[in-house]
Amino acid sequence: MLTKAFAAQSATTPFAPHTIDRRAPGPKDVAIEILFCGVCHSDLHTARGEWPGTQYPCVPGHEIIGKVMAVGKEVSRFKPGQIVGVGCMVESCRTCAQCHDGLEQYCDGPIGFTGTYNGPVGGGPNTYGGYSAAITVDEHFVLNINHAEKDLAAVAPLLCAGITTWSPLKHWGAGPGKKVGIVGIGGLGHMGVKFSHALGAHTVAFTTSTGKVADAKALGADEVVVSKDDAQMKKHLNSFDMILNTVAAPHNLDAFTALLKRDGTMALVGAPSTPHPSPAVFNLVFKRRSIAGSLLGGIPETQEMLDFCAKHDITCDIEMIKMQDIETAYARMLKNDVKYRFVIDMASLK
Amino acid sequence: MLTKAFAAQSATTPFAPHTIDRRAPGPKDVAIEILFCGVCHSDLHTARGEWPGTQYPCVPGHEIIGKVMAVGKEVSRFKPGQIVGVGCMVESCRTCAQCHDGLEQYCDGPIGFTGTYNGPVGGGPNTYGGYSAAITVDEHFVLNINHAEKDLAAVAPLLCAGITTWSPLKHWGAGPGKKVGIVGIGGLGHMGVKFSHALGAHTVAFTTSTGKVADAKALGADEVVVSKDDAQMKKHLNSFDMILNTVAAPHNLDAFTALLKRDGTMALVGAPSTPHPSPAVFNLVFKRRSIAGSLLGGIPETQEMLDFCAKHDITCDIEMIKMQDIETAYARMLKNDVKYRFVIDMASLK
Repeated sequence: MLTKAFAAQSATTPFAPHTIDRRAPGPKDVAIEILFCGVCHSDLHTARGEWPGTQYPCVPGHEIIGKVMAVGKEVSRFKPGQIVGVGCMVESCRTCAQCHDGLEQYCDGPIGFTGTYNGPVGGGPNTYGGYSAAITVDEHFVLNINHAEKDLAAVAPLLCAGITTWSPLKHWGAGPGKKVGIVGIGGLGHMGVKFSHALGAHTVAFTTSTGKVADAKALGADEVVVSKDDAQMKKHLNSFDMILNTVAAPHNLDAFTALLKRDGTMALVGAPSTPHPSPAVFNLVFKRRSIAGSLLGGIPETQEMLDFCAKHDITCDIEMIKMQDIETAYARMLKNDVKYRFVIDMASLK
Repeated sequence: MLTKAFAAQSATTPFAPHTIDRRAPGPKDVAIEILFCGVCHSDLHTARGEWPGTQYPCVPGHEIIGKVMAVGKEVSRFKPGQIVGVGCMVESCRTCAQCHDGLEQYCDGPIGFTGTYNGPVGGGPNTYGGYSAAITVDEHFVLNINHAEKDLAAVAPLLCAGITTWSPLKHWGAGPGKKVGIVGIGGLGHMGVKFSHALGAHTVAFTTSTGKVADAKALGADEVVVSKDDAQMKKHLNSFDMILNTVAAPHNLDAFTALLKRDGTMALVGAPSTPHPSPAVFNLVFKRRSIAGSLLGGIPETQEMLDFCAKHDITCDIEMIKMQDIETAYARMLKNDVKYRFVIDMASLK
C-alpha cells in the first residue's frame, strides 16, 4: 500500500515528500487513515540525528489520531469508520513480565518495544510514523478514542505527552490529599498540570518564566512557583508527596528534591543530553527521598487515560499546522514558542 | 555526675582523657553504665572536623551497650541492672509527623533529632557520646537488649551499623522471593548481608576486592560479585528488586542501577564527601528505577531489629579494643583494616 509521507533523508536534509510502503492488514492488523499527528521533541531529535541510531529515511510522528479503513479477520475491537489512536509503540515481545503486566514500554524482550518510528529500541528494521497518510498497526497497540469529533486534533498529543505524564502521576499516587509539583510548563508539563488537577491533587507548577504564571493557573495549578526565586521555593521545603519533572535540559535537581517530604519521589521524564549536576545524596538520605525515572506508559494505562480524558473533557492545548510547515514548527519549538503542542492536520498531505 | 570520658579537644588534637558532667536522671531518664561502645566512621569524621559543625570537646560514640544504674520515677520500661542500648539519637521533637510515625531520624522539629554526640543536627547545645563511662538518656531513646551476656560487645554496632542497613532493607521489602544486592562489605555492608540473608532474600554481595569473596559468602551471601569485573556484573543486569549501597566513596552508580529490574530501588546509606559522578537518567527512565537515600532507623524499628537479632542469634563481627587505642583503630579504619567493626571495652576507661 503505497502511502504519502514526509521524511528526512539525512540528519541535515529538510523534510520533503516521500512515499512509503505500508503493509496490507494481516489477520490482527488495523489499517488507519491518519487525520492528525502531534509533533513531539523526540521527532526533532530523531530526524536530526541528535540521538544515536536514527535510521533514514526518517518518518517521525507518534501522536496519531485516525479513522479505521480496514481490519484483519481476527480483529475484534475495531471496525471500519471508528476513530482510533496510535502512540509511541507498535509492537513488543508480548511474553515478558513487563508485557504481561501491560507495561510494554519496559519490554524485556531481546529488542525491547518497537517504536512507531525508527524501529525497535534495541535495533531492527525501520518503522515509519505518523507524518504520513496512513499506518497499519496490530490491534493490541491501537487505542479507542471516545472524544467528540471537534476535539480530535487536540487529543493527538495525549498519545505521548499525555501518557508520559499520566503514567508517573498515577504510579506515584497523585490524587486527593496529595501535594504534587510539576516542573516545566511545556508540551509535557501542561498536561501534567491538567492531570494532577483533574486527579484531585493540590497542584503546584514550577516555571523559570514569570510570563507563564497566569497560563499555569489557567491550566489548573493551585499555585505557581517561579523556580529562580529562592524565597518562593523555600516556602515549599519538605512539603511535596511527588514532583513530576518534565525538564530535559540539565539543571539543579537539588532545588526540587529539597521540596519533597519524607518518602517523596521526584520522577524524571526527560533525559538530558549532557548530565544534570550530580544530585546531593544528603538531600535524599535525610528524608528518605527518591529520584526516579519514568518512560511513556503501557497500553492498558494509555486507554485508561484516554477514557478519563473523554469523561472529564480533557484535551491538549494545541496549534494546528500543515505538514509542509514542519521545519518552521521545529524552529519555533527550539525557541519554546508553542502553547503547548503542534499538531499536523494530515489533510494537508493529500 | 562527673564522668570519665575520652575527648578530642580540636580537629587536630589526639583523643585524651577528659571529664564530662552527666545529668542526674530526671523523672523519665535512665542512667546507664557504659559497657561497650562501637566505633563508627562518623566518630572519626566528626572528631577530626571533616564534616561541618563539630563542637569541641568532642566525645563520639553512638553504638552503646550498658547496664542501667538508676531510673527516674516515671520510667516504666527499665530497671536497675538491666542491659540496654543507646543508638544515634537521644532526643527529638516528639510531636511532628515523623516522630509520630516512629521515624525520629527524620524529625521535622526546628532542630531535628538530637544526636547522641555533637548535639542536635539542626544546631544546639553539645552532647557527649559513648566514649565515656556513663550516660543519661530519656527512656524513649533507650533500647531493650535480650542477647546473652557473652554477645554484648558484638551487639553494640547493631545500634548504628545494624539499624542503618536494617531500616532500608525492611522499607524496600527485602524478603523471600526478592533478589537483594549489598554494595560494599564493611561495617555497614557486612550487616546488610547478614540481615538480607536472615530475612530470606536471595542475597548478592558486591565488592571491589577479590579477597572478600569467601568472607562475604561466610556472612550469608548467596552470590558474590567482584564489581570491577564487567562480565560478572553483566550477568545480573535487570535482575535486582533492591540494592543497598553502603559505599560512601564517590563511585559510578550507573553500574548498579543497570542491575535493577523494573521498579527496583537502589538505596544509598553513605553520603560522599565529593559528589558521585552524575547518575545516568536514561538508566532510571528505561525501567522506572529509583535512587533513594536512607538515614539510620527509628526507635520502634531499632527495637524490632534488636529483637529479631536476639531471636536469630545475629551479632556483628567485631574486634575489641581499649579506649586508649582509639587513634590506632582510626588509622586502621582508614585502611579498611577491620573485620568489620571496632568495639571499645569500656572497662579500659576505669
